[in-house]
Amino acid sequence: MALTNPMPMGPWKLTVYDQENFQGKRTKFTSACQNIMECGMDNIRSLKVECGAWVGYEHSSFCGQQFILERGDYPRWESWSGSNAYHIERLMSLRPICSANHKESKITVFERENFIGHQWEMTDDYPSLQAMGWPSNEIGSMQVQSGAWVCYQYPGYRGYQYIMECDHHGGEYKHYRGLPRSNLPSSVSPPSSAVRAIRPTPFLPPPHPPPLPPPLPHLHPFILIPSCPARPGPAQAERLVNSADVYSAFFID
Amino acid sequence: MALTNPMPMGPWKLTVYDQENFQGKRTKFTSACQNIMECGMDNIRSLKVECGAWVGYEHSSFCGQQFILERGDYPRWESWSGSNAYHIERLMSLRPICSANHKESKITVFERENFIGHQWEMTDDYPSLQAMGWPSNEIGSMQVQSGAWVCYQYPGYRGYQYIMECDHHGGEYKHYRGLPRSNLPSSVSPPSSAVRAIRPTPFLPPPHPPPLPPPLPHLHPFILIPSCPARPGPAQAERLVNSADVYSAFFID
Repeated sequence: MALTNPMPMGPWKLTVYDQENFQGKRTKFTSACQNIMECGMDNIRSLKVECGAWVGYEHSSFCGQQFILERGDYPRWESWSGSNAYHIERLMSLRPICSANHKESKITVFERENFIGHQWEMTDDYPSLQAMGWPSNEIGSMQVQSGAWVCYQYPGYRGYQYIMECDHHGGEYKHYRGLPRSNLPSSVSPPSSAVRAIRPTPFLPPPHPPPLPPPLPHLHPFILIPSCPARPGPAQAERLVNSADVYSAFFID
Repeated sequence: MALTNPMPMGPWKLTVYDQENFQGKRTKFTSACQNIMECGMDNIRSLKVECGAWVGYEHSSFCGQQFILERGDYPRWESWSGSNAYHIERLMSLRPICSANHKESKITVFERENFIGHQWEMTDDYPSLQAMGWPSNEIGSMQVQSGAWVCYQYPGYRGYQYIMECDHHGGEYKHYRGLPRSNLPSSVSPPSSAVRAIRPTPFLPPPHPPPLPPPLPHLHPFILIPSCPARPGPAQAERLVNSADVYSAFFID
């Protein structure tokens, strides 16, 4: 992808670490990095986005799988990668998303390539286009009038992510072409089932801390009761400690 | 989890298949299923949500990892599972989310357990709580006043998913407790970095099809030009066909 603005000067800030959980060698970025190795990092294993919205790439030169990176902590690779059978543990280049502007975001999606067929103008997030009335399983082309958007392969903001920006390609994304289907996993299509506008860090003050609420008389002491009666067999035990037994106890009432 | 309403009568419809890509044996559901094996399915490999919003579970009896399932097609397990190092290919029970009501959804999040500390009332989706001004890395407790919500472990609607409903637990989610950290992957905390309201199928008519736009004179014929000059070595070739080479050609201008 051609990079329209490789050295933006806006208020962007991102810190990367070569170990998980924000450990090891670290480097700060305030503008695009085409190859992390040229910035002294062999790999990125965790990162913190402190300002702005960014996009990370699987390969150098802004190529390969894309990952939207909004303000927050990303302690391991699965915190930034999508939900796919093909897991991407590498993050080799990154850049700010200069056009991210949630309040003004607008995109028009078209049923077919070249801006033909049913069309729909959107200014809000849609976790499932089909649920909101889009008559097709696919989007053929898109016109980003303002802001920047993330499109997702599957409903609920899952699967591969594609960043669409008003200041790249003139905001015009005219064609969808996959490689020959015989080479692709079946999960490659449809290209988009969900879209959402990227919100930059808005520099909001933290919410006004209200006075502490009075003690609630109906609260009872916390007791850790597994809510799932199922017990794993020996073969399952190692995996289950990472999921069911933990998360069924996530919120207990 | 205790199931408040195991046999809702609303307009919910979901079809599951025992093979990927909507192949093989299939079964339709219009209400909760506690164990798919009791409904004649050995496993679920793909599914279509045709009406309503649903939640799927890794284990029977509504236990284990949760997966929000909104209207749309889910051709493979990675289309419904979250983005985690621990991959869940099983979906053993499912139920409609009866309280999903995006227009009326309201949740209050609290910094600490038992509804103490900073609090924030939300009626909209937040892909990154930190970006929107939440002063902490964690949410200690939540009160769902109306509707149903999905909370995510990581910013950008990634990581483990937790469904929060106004009609479960009286909408009160008072405590977060993980198991001892030594048994857990580091990715288990913080518990929530993003939240969004669940939107049920609204039965909207499809968007009004406008007349076809006039041909755009500046469009040029489509040519597939790989946008990434990098060429993978032999060891990378098999993986790359699933990602970079495909997706850098996703939209060509």
